[in-house]
Amino acid sequence: MAGPGRVYIVGAGPGDPELITVKGLRLLRSADAVVYDRLVPGELLGEAKRGARLVYAGKAPGRHAMSQDEINRLLEGLAREGLVVVRLHGGDPLTFGRGEEECAYLLSRGIPCEVVPGIPSYVAASAEHLLPLGSRGYSRVYTVATGTLAGGTPLPRERLEAAMRASDSLVVLMAASRAAEILGLAAETLGPQAPAAIVESASTPKSKLTLGPAGELAATAKPRPPALIYIGGAVRWRLDTLPTGRS
Amino acid sequence: MAGPGRVYIVGAGPGDPELITVKGLRLLRSADAVVYDRLVPGELLGEAKRGARLVYAGKAPGRHAMSQDEINRLLEGLAREGLVVVRLHGGDPLTFGRGEEECAYLLSRGIPCEVVPGIPSYVAASAEHLLPLGSRGYSRVYTVATGTLAGGTPLPRERLEAAMRASDSLVVLMAASRAAEILGLAAETLGPQAPAAIVESASTPKSKLTLGPAGELAATAKPRPPALIYIGGAVRWRLDTLPTGRS
Repeated sequence: MAGPGRVYIVGAGPGDPELITVKGLRLLRSADAVVYDRLVPGELLGEAKRGARLVYAGKAPGRHAMSQDEINRLLEGLAREGLVVVRLHGGDPLTFGRGEEECAYLLSRGIPCEVVPGIPSYVAASAEHLLPLGSRGYSRVYTVATGTLAGGTPLPRERLEAAMRASDSLVVLMAASRAAEILGLAAETLGPQAPAAIVESASTPKSKLTLGPAGELAATAKPRPPALIYIGGAVRWRLDTLPTGRS
Repeated sequence: MAGPGRVYIVGAGPGDPELITVKGLRLLRSADAVVYDRLVPGELLGEAKRGARLVYAGKAPGRHAMSQDEINRLLEGLAREGLVVVRLHGGDPLTFGRGEEECAYLLSRGIPCEVVPGIPSYVAASAEHLLPLGSRGYSRVYTVATGTLAGGTPLPRERLEAAMRASDSLVVLMAASRAAEILGLAAETLGPQAPAAIVESASTPKSKLTLGPAGELAATAKPRPPALIYIGGAVRWRLDTLPTGRS
């Protein structure tokens, strides 16, 4: 029987295959097995070495190709064959990716595990569309929330409202299916003119920014997933600072 | 006179030179000039092409080797010589790095500018020490704040307190000089047993995690900069889930 291999839980970044880290790419190229998600850029899979086993564990919102338990056991089984395994997540593994559950499961069974961070979707969208979440005079405190969770439970409205009040900026991930509700809540909580933005398919060729007052966007926006919603200071910075018309 | 060059505002990531993105490294290797910060990993500067101009614009908390205005004008001047310029920030340029100000300045003068994101220090520290900010059942809403700002202004206590109440987890960046105050505030707001952690020098060989109840850490901790403070769910996940003693 082979000695235990090891598992690297790696963030692939948000979509653009060049936004993976140098370390993530190095590990991907040397892995014996790669277990990957639905949102992982396809180009990256071509970086795996010849003969590496590629296993799709695709997570779509609300339905999983494999249950989390199945993924955990798959990773354990591959490592117990003595393989070096890369578990490739879209974005960052610990930003609503459940990478921490995978790592804890493996560590508790004596299998070495390391998490390699990835650029979260919201960090990439902020760079791409100049929506600075941490910006002087506009956004000293920002909150990140997920609109829907594994299992499909929505985040309660009062939690979103509290975050809008406590922070200069709020960004909501996995927000497409609740866009009208979240933007409507922002209009109620901060006023209909509160600056808001929607980013669809961040850091891909289909990336799209929609800017507008929260009240207006609430009535009109029908974003396609994956979508992020920005409220507050990060958007206000952009409106105040950039020449109008730039998008 | 040369036509205008262009400026890439690039995040170098948190310290480990392998945590820059593939795109960031590609641009760094091809740049004619590199303008870099104090917190940029030194190894990365060795990646610049032979003959590239390297300019130190080092920012230390509270004092700047160059003022932001001087940096802006430097970037403009280099681009007007027709050069391809990489402005290299520690971490992510739009996470309290003022990259957005540089980009706005350049765009308003007709100089092409693009922001390439980097792994923020807190995303790296979460991966390295398994402090998952976005984790099921523990942390659906998290807040990121900066303890001190450019110019040295501290974030008011009531803003930190509101963030602690509204979020499952809070992470405070640039927190070393205010560690006792922030942890004391967490103990007052959430109770002295509130789970807390300090990460010093994230993603470097000197990286150090200190875990403990907020009340206890407030009395004992004297972190060296750069330091991050975590409060709440991200830390609780770790205490509940990992075998004790792992660090």
